[in-house]
Amino acid sequence: MITRMSSLFLRTLREDPADAEVPSHKLLVRAGYVRRVAPGGYSWLPLGLRVLRNIEAVVREEMDAFGAQEIQFPALLPKEPYEATNRWEEYGPNIFRLKDRKGADYLLGPTHEELFTLTVKGEYSSYKDYPVTLYQIQTKYRDEARPRAGILRGREFLMKDSYSFDLTDEGLSQSYQDHRDAYIRIFDRLGLEYVIVSATSGAMGGSASEEFLAVAETGEDTFVRSTESGYAANVEAVTTPVPPAQSIDDKPAAQVHHTPNTPTIETLVDFLNANTDRKFTAADTLKNVLVKLKHPGKDWELLAVAVPGDREVDFKRLEAALEPAEVAMVDETDFAKNPFLVKGYIGPGAIQGNGIRYLADPRVVTGTAWVTGADKADHHVVDLVAGRDFTPDGVIDVAEVREGDASPDGKGVLVAARGIEIGHIFQLGRKYADAFSLDALGPDSKPVRITMGSYGIGVSRLVAAIAEQSYDERGLIWPRNVAPADVHVVVAGKDETLLRAGEDFAKQLSDSGLKVLLDDRKASPGVKFADAELVGVPTILVVGRGLKDGVVEVKDRKSGERQDVPVAEVVEHLVRVVRG
Amino acid sequence: MITRMSSLFLRTLREDPADAEVPSHKLLVRAGYVRRVAPGGYSWLPLGLRVLRNIEAVVREEMDAFGAQEIQFPALLPKEPYEATNRWEEYGPNIFRLKDRKGADYLLGPTHEELFTLTVKGEYSSYKDYPVTLYQIQTKYRDEARPRAGILRGREFLMKDSYSFDLTDEGLSQSYQDHRDAYIRIFDRLGLEYVIVSATSGAMGGSASEEFLAVAETGEDTFVRSTESGYAANVEAVTTPVPPAQSIDDKPAAQVHHTPNTPTIETLVDFLNANTDRKFTAADTLKNVLVKLKHPGKDWELLAVAVPGDREVDFKRLEAALEPAEVAMVDETDFAKNPFLVKGYIGPGAIQGNGIRYLADPRVVTGTAWVTGADKADHHVVDLVAGRDFTPDGVIDVAEVREGDASPDGKGVLVAARGIEIGHIFQLGRKYADAFSLDALGPDSKPVRITMGSYGIGVSRLVAAIAEQSYDERGLIWPRNVAPADVHVVVAGKDETLLRAGEDFAKQLSDSGLKVLLDDRKASPGVKFADAELVGVPTILVVGRGLKDGVVEVKDRKSGERQDVPVAEVVEHLVRVVRG
Repeated sequence: MITRMSSLFLRTLREDPADAEVPSHKLLVRAGYVRRVAPGGYSWLPLGLRVLRNIEAVVREEMDAFGAQEIQFPALLPKEPYEATNRWEEYGPNIFRLKDRKGADYLLGPTHEELFTLTVKGEYSSYKDYPVTLYQIQTKYRDEARPRAGILRGREFLMKDSYSFDLTDEGLSQSYQDHRDAYIRIFDRLGLEYVIVSATSGAMGGSASEEFLAVAETGEDTFVRSTESGYAANVEAVTTPVPPAQSIDDKPAAQVHHTPNTPTIETLVDFLNANTDRKFTAADTLKNVLVKLKHPGKDWELLAVAVPGDREVDFKRLEAALEPAEVAMVDETDFAKNPFLVKGYIGPGAIQGNGIRYLADPRVVTGTAWVTGADKADHHVVDLVAGRDFTPDGVIDVAEVREGDASPDGKGVLVAARGIEIGHIFQLGRKYADAFSLDALGPDSKPVRITMGSYGIGVSRLVAAIAEQSYDERGLIWPRNVAPADVHVVVAGKDETLLRAGEDFAKQLSDSGLKVLLDDRKASPGVKFADAELVGVPTILVVGRGLKDGVVEVKDRKSGERQDVPVAEVVEHLVRVVRG
Repeated sequence: MITRMSSLFLRTLREDPADAEVPSHKLLVRAGYVRRVAPGGYSWLPLGLRVLRNIEAVVREEMDAFGAQEIQFPALLPKEPYEATNRWEEYGPNIFRLKDRKGADYLLGPTHEELFTLTVKGEYSSYKDYPVTLYQIQTKYRDEARPRAGILRGREFLMKDSYSFDLTDEGLSQSYQDHRDAYIRIFDRLGLEYVIVSATSGAMGGSASEEFLAVAETGEDTFVRSTESGYAANVEAVTTPVPPAQSIDDKPAAQVHHTPNTPTIETLVDFLNANTDRKFTAADTLKNVLVKLKHPGKDWELLAVAVPGDREVDFKRLEAALEPAEVAMVDETDFAKNPFLVKGYIGPGAIQGNGIRYLADPRVVTGTAWVTGADKADHHVVDLVAGRDFTPDGVIDVAEVREGDASPDGKGVLVAARGIEIGHIFQLGRKYADAFSLDALGPDSKPVRITMGSYGIGVSRLVAAIAEQSYDERGLIWPRNVAPADVHVVVAGKDETLLRAGEDFAKQLSDSGLKVLLDDRKASPGVKFADAELVGVPTILVVGRGLKDGVVEVKDRKSGERQDVPVAEVVEHLVRVVRG
């Protein structure tokens, strides 16, 4: 296939678009791959659409390869199934809702658990029908509060979503593993650098869940990885290693100190170090943070969270830990209603003594001694020992994770990184099967409740994610499997001989099965070279001055390496370069 | 590729779905190709999606072949461009409208003229850039008042829409012709029986326009075709042959008759035939029909339309003829306001004498004599001669078209038929270029206003249109180019030898590049045969009792023809059958 730039619907831009901040957004617009139509809504121009389709094809191949079956749902969906699972409400302002001419409620599907569940229920009835995995590659909609970074976070985007339906938990584990393996093959084929992080579930509820993050400074997701192992996780999913319990017997008795003017951990530590003969650090103090939470359909209730004083409570980790409850910080009204809470000096006594649930950091193991509030203004207690002087109602792992923390797998320490979520695999369990009574009739004629998995890949986002990992100051650099063409033939000069030679090379390459982008425009060589670098086809063939000496130049876009190749050998050479 | 029915997500139904009326709807649901999700919203199950993709591929190939370039727009579109062309209003309740979380107005795109125009304007500026033709194959939305017939008229559907941009009218003609030729190739390749009818433009405004209609009894579009030529047209586009003018000199003078109790044409003709010595027919009378019309932004005005008394005014033709004005019938209030109009006895005198515009059927040529109202209750005038006693203000061709009417091309007579609109090609002209000032800078540095064409193919509707033309009482019969598989291998028996042979044939066929649907289920041969007929793959290979004698049966789904083929030859035989 030959695409001639003389007629291609492509106009590159020399300037970055004003609204673009991240490299992929700037370059995809400048190179004429996408154009903005509305906030979070982009059109795909010819080269962009090709890259998108190439990615789509890789995803489809790998899904089909493990037996997933492609179907397609409408994007415009009736409200009822989403009401049945309460997601019509739960999505809040994050989905697009509309009414039809008769006033019936619809939404633009953000994800299709409900429809897939209902469809399987409609077709299948016997245990012999299962397992089955269905998928679609389909346009999805989310009314993002802040669409950003071009196609990286749009409001209309292309997604592969799949759903597995199994009779048993073991079956679900297998389906999950099948997807995990397929995703690894997909992202490897796309040439991405990525990590697989343990994740929490977001709004979907359920158990095992991992995210595939393309490593990129501009990514919205932060994660931590070990300096010495393959461990990687969202901060929400990091588990703090639990230290061994200590002996209680050798601990001094708890003692209340008058600690005037110590409203902060720092002032408290300074005061104690100045006024006692011991040396304390912030890590020796226990900070009791009051929050409130609300389970669906219930009233707000208070919760106290204890974390070592050298760490803040990470609100994202807190939300994830308490899901599906809603969480909020307490305010003055809450303190006013609960006068036993002495702000700045709260201790376990007032908390537990007044029936407030008290959850502590995993570091608060039996035998650890803490400095904490004495439930009285300007007073703290020293040597309050867990398991002796107080016993939290449970453990909650929500303290901030820091670079340098030990990796949960015991190997190395954690460092922070950023990534773009490109895939998510998730064991839903029976939530949706319960909502719609999806049962199979078992061999004993008894119903078996189906268990499900849900798996997504952001297909259009991948275009941006790949671009984020593969560019330089001159433009895009596409991995071979996704590039809009195999070879970019640049006719570098206005001489008719050069043009004829370029056409001839293009034809021979095309006949050999390669996709060729042929720059047959009347523009100057400089303009053409700049456009070739910007557009980012991995191999560039320059038909220029050398032709009269029987050579053309083959340039590798990524390395910048140039090589003169004899005219007679160039087609064979390029076929070898492209096919690997 | 082998698809095993033992694991295929397919459950056929023995009964027609309750809501299905047309054959394609019944069969596509029964054969497990589509499932209803909402009114006018369907999901595509695996086999249905394959047929859809096969059709899409043919459309794409033929569009690419003549240089059209594929791009893709969002379906969720901002209001502003549609306001600029007034279509936000004009579409009325026929589009889906919604607001985002910030209250901004959006619509789900029913067609994309505005966006294509703006995009070309954004990229191109010089006359050297043109012509260009862009297309997309994209999900479209219309809030149909009456979605019907499954995917034949849905509210969410897949459409190929393309737009040509030319500097000159000749260029537009060429682009139009290119599309026309491509459409012919597409519909021929899809094995459709279709006609190309002259059409009016619907809500789009402009000039030349043709529709491609798949001939089908269940079609919503009526059209007429000549018994003796290839002429075919929508009734809106039929032009009545104009008879030659007659001499005025030999006509008797007009004479008013007292015609009591003749409120209808029939009673009038009977009265005249009984009370004069001449023989009149309804075709000798001239019926003056009052209607009212409203041009955008203006007040309603009256219009009188004269048609021969043996024909009704065809409201669809009337609307098409008066477009873009809105048309309505007059009511009692209108008569009350215009007392000179004597209901049942209206003549040209009162009409034209009171400043009402008067348009007449093409048959009302100079010298024709008519019986018509005398503007006085119970009175008619006979021998009122056109060009002598009255002269209409113009011609309007809106009388009903009847079977037996002469074909406008002079060959044969017209007969009525029904069809499904599968394609529409349309010379838009400069309407959208004017709305958005789409100009190219000409060679003389003066702006040249671009002229556009708009061209659509209902890709998902084609699945139904093809099915409507190709089925029998046992099921679907796919044309080879769109079938979900090339060969349906039926293992007719539970014997392990048969299954192994079936698997082996499937593998050999697949290795030869054919797509195989392999019925490896444990079901009875009867169930499998019935499913094979229902599913409609064009060639069925039955691996059954003959195997022990070294033969298998090859069955043609369409003709029902069966042939025993020696096992050693069957793969070669089938490759030949499939490849043609």
